[in-house]
Amino acid sequence: MRAYLAGPEVFLPNAREILDRKIALTRSYGFTPVSPGDLSVPETETRRQRGLAISAINEKLMSSADLIIANLTPFRGVAADVGTAFELGFMCARGCPAFAFSNCTENHFERVRGLYGGEVHLGPDGRHRGPDGLALENFDMADNLMLDGGIAARGGVIVTRKVSADQLFTDLTAFEECLGLAAEKLLKEAVGA
Amino acid sequence: MRAYLAGPEVFLPNAREILDRKIALTRSYGFTPVSPGDLSVPETETRRQRGLAISAINEKLMSSADLIIANLTPFRGVAADVGTAFELGFMCARGCPAFAFSNCTENHFERVRGLYGGEVHLGPDGRHRGPDGLALENFDMADNLMLDGGIAARGGVIVTRKVSADQLFTDLTAFEECLGLAAEKLLKEAVGA
Repeated sequence: MRAYLAGPEVFLPNAREILDRKIALTRSYGFTPVSPGDLSVPETETRRQRGLAISAINEKLMSSADLIIANLTPFRGVAADVGTAFELGFMCARGCPAFAFSNCTENHFERVRGLYGGEVHLGPDGRHRGPDGLALENFDMADNLMLDGGIAARGGVIVTRKVSADQLFTDLTAFEECLGLAAEKLLKEAVGA
Repeated sequence: MRAYLAGPEVFLPNAREILDRKIALTRSYGFTPVSPGDLSVPETETRRQRGLAISAINEKLMSSADLIIANLTPFRGVAADVGTAFELGFMCARGCPAFAFSNCTENHFERVRGLYGGEVHLGPDGRHRGPDGLALENFDMADNLMLDGGIAARGGVIVTRKVSADQLFTDLTAFEECLGLAAEKLLKEAVGA
């Protein structure tokens, strides 16, 4: 089975090293890794054309994969990387098993409450809202309900783990635990065990 | 054609009013609107079960739709709402035309540079990086390349417009322009014009 490894690791200064570690771990659990950056990007005339070319490659890689393992660690804010969220939705629509991990144990509600400095009130409609009036989801979920719900509906789980701040995007312990759970569910099923 | 109206409007204090205005505008351009919140959520025992139920309803609504019009206005940070990004990926994987709008004209690169207080440097690898070492995408795109790329690959566009801060999620001018472009492309095609 081919596992698409979605996540913001591509933005790291040592992206190649971390991607290679993820690829090696994925192989060690019996999956064939499919990773952004696997294919080289053709020369393009404009920056925008280059961005489109990378998008096309990643979509092609996803379409060749059987499952997704997404890194939902909050990225530059309170929520997962939007590129990763797009890819998770893409693979869910394809009916693929979806697994995820996050190196943050605070749930969505706690993170958004933190963003508002704790100034969250329960409105007459039963929803918690920030000072800007925007509602906070309060569903005991790691992130927006479409992400958690999409994963759960396809038999997956989200593994969360608290790591030190300087290891937020490089600690692969939760990723490896996630790989183990995916292998137990999918590879055992595949051999009929 | 059924148009799924994705976006963070569901979190607004006057969500119902804004969703109803979007629904009416969508009809006026010849599409059948499909909107989060269209179906009622069954009673559940836990908050998590409620979140899962809403996710299942939204996936069902998306699966009944022929195109998506996504609100990519940055939400609680520098990027689009991750639930909306998930839904955009979902509809792209289904092969549906994808259109979007944003009430912010700063592009992705400018917004992330702002997040870093302008402290962005061009590294030896040709990529711009923040003080944390993370690379900034610099592709003249509204958001992460998977979002812009997914839309472009399916013939869609992203309409952007600068609105006053207090109208960020309620000004529907860009949404209406987007509807017009989608109707021109899809409904004229549909009747063979």
